[in-house]
Amino acid sequence: MERHEFGYFTEKNSVEAVTGRNKNATNPRLKEVMEVITRKLHEAVKEIEPTQDEWFQAIQFLTATGHKCDDWRQEFILLSDVLGVSMLVDAVNSRRPSGASENTVLGPFHVGNAPEYEMGHNICLDEKGEDLVVRGKITDIDGNPLEGVKIDVWQANDEGFYDVQQKGLQPDFNLRGVFKTGPDGSYWFKAVKPKFYPIPNDGPVGGLLNRLGRHPYRPAHLHYIVSKDGFEQLTTHIFDPHDKYINSDSVFGVKESLLADFRKIETPEEIAKIGFEGPHYWDVQYDFVLAPKKD
Amino acid sequence: MERHEFGYFTEKNSVEAVTGRNKNATNPRLKEVMEVITRKLHEAVKEIEPTQDEWFQAIQFLTATGHKCDDWRQEFILLSDVLGVSMLVDAVNSRRPSGASENTVLGPFHVGNAPEYEMGHNICLDEKGEDLVVRGKITDIDGNPLEGVKIDVWQANDEGFYDVQQKGLQPDFNLRGVFKTGPDGSYWFKAVKPKFYPIPNDGPVGGLLNRLGRHPYRPAHLHYIVSKDGFEQLTTHIFDPHDKYINSDSVFGVKESLLADFRKIETPEEIAKIGFEGPHYWDVQYDFVLAPKKD
Ligand SMILES: [Fe+2]
Ligand SMILES: [Fe+2]
Repeated sequence: MERHEFGYFTEKNSVEAVTGRNKNATNPRLKEVMEVITRKLHEAVKEIEPTQDEWFQAIQFLTATGHKCDDWRQEFILLSDVLGVSMLVDAVNSRRPSGASENTVLGPFHVGNAPEYEMGHNICLDEKGEDLVVRGKITDIDGNPLEGVKIDVWQANDEGFYDVQQKGLQPDFNLRGVFKTGPDGSYWFKAVKPKFYPIPNDGPVGGLLNRLGRHPYRPAHLHYIVSKDGFEQLTTHIFDPHDKYINSDSVFGVKESLLADFRKIETPEEIAKIGFEGPHYWDVQYDFVLAPKKD
Repeated sequence: MERHEFGYFTEKNSVEAVTGRNKNATNPRLKEVMEVITRKLHEAVKEIEPTQDEWFQAIQFLTATGHKCDDWRQEFILLSDVLGVSMLVDAVNSRRPSGASENTVLGPFHVGNAPEYEMGHNICLDEKGEDLVVRGKITDIDGNPLEGVKIDVWQANDEGFYDVQQKGLQPDFNLRGVFKTGPDGSYWFKAVKPKFYPIPNDGPVGGLLNRLGRHPYRPAHLHYIVSKDGFEQLTTHIFDPHDKYINSDSVFGVKESLLADFRKIETPEEIAKIGFEGPHYWDVQYDFVLAPKKD
């Protein structure tokens, strides 16, 4: 008969009774992770003191969340997003030296094979919405311009949908592009002014948001992955600070440093020079600072 | 533009940034529960500091656990069981005055409509295994015998399966029965000596147990629900203390007070008197003490 070190399970010794069983775990990291998860779960139960019915509601919620997941929908990632867990995981993995640009969540809509364009290209292929010029400079933390930086950008269209959400309705690779900086480290391209959009809210996570009195919207943003050998990859957004959801992003992706300045350009000369039709366009400038690779 | 009270999400203010959004929750209890869950989740992330890959493994594990759930299988309850959460929820809901019998987990195999029998009936309908007599007395905490107590019992068969797990292979209602006590508060019935059995371990939870170096077995037990108006319902097991898994129940259901004494009876006179065929049978006596109803 196997002896037990911690005695039978009681309210008092509940954590040790459970984690004490993991002595023969094959993977020391898994053992460490499960020790924390078990302890935090038990702390939560002891603080909440759920009724049996409340516990079963939690079981049903997790089950429905699992059942909502398929090849196209990841409801557990949504749950992680709306509880700030995704942002926190991003944060603990993206601590950077002061002055370097800040990371934020990747989101589910990146695709790996977007076309590479010359600077100045217009990535908006559906001709909807207000014209936008995006431009800026990539430097290291000492301010030196970086050449050969890969800038992978993507955004939702004027109706708040990414191309992959509307296959067949939007042109393939609408509002996606890859650019490479020249010796001066600068970049620029044409796009469309982004709009706020809801995260998918027809599932259990949407129901939870609703009961918590929360909306599902993300403020308008453009996504970037900025990368160059020898530097930490930067996965981030830039945000429109005038969006009505800027202070209540449903997934908590906004950071002060990622607020960009969208300027409305209405002078006919400037409109003509950039090659838009008018009556106005938007101009946003945002510079990125890459941190040197760790280790 | 909605103002935010706690500023943008940071590692430091992560909990308040998330829970501060729940000001308009429709249900105050849900708000309270989500405050604790969010806080404990963030504490776990800050302590574990998962890599993005580890976070995604957790997402995949939860998704697979959800996908394993159907009308017949509840993998999230299994997960709750093997992490001691089910026992802890049972514990916080079953605090009783000293002297009263202790609760343990209900388990997934109770059915509501088992047949009612006269005392002494043999609930073992498949004629497999070693004969057993179960007997005892039900009293209140002052030791007074309780009349009209409903005793609902169920157990696995000699091969470690409940009838509902082997529909068509076992007789319906094999090893289930309901008994009512008379004026002396005593009960007795015939059954079969229980055996250890594994919880379902062909899913993600079984995989987790395996990687943690844990086995899936529960030590041999009989299940009881003992109830009478005016008293707290008692949902419990009695355990065979000589089972090889008694100190390592995969769901942590064992309590010191629930160890019963299984005596082997080999004298021909006793075997004949009870009506078994021999060459031996087992006799277990266990008395229950019901706590008065709260409120
Ligand atoms: Fe986005
Ligand atoms: Fe059982």
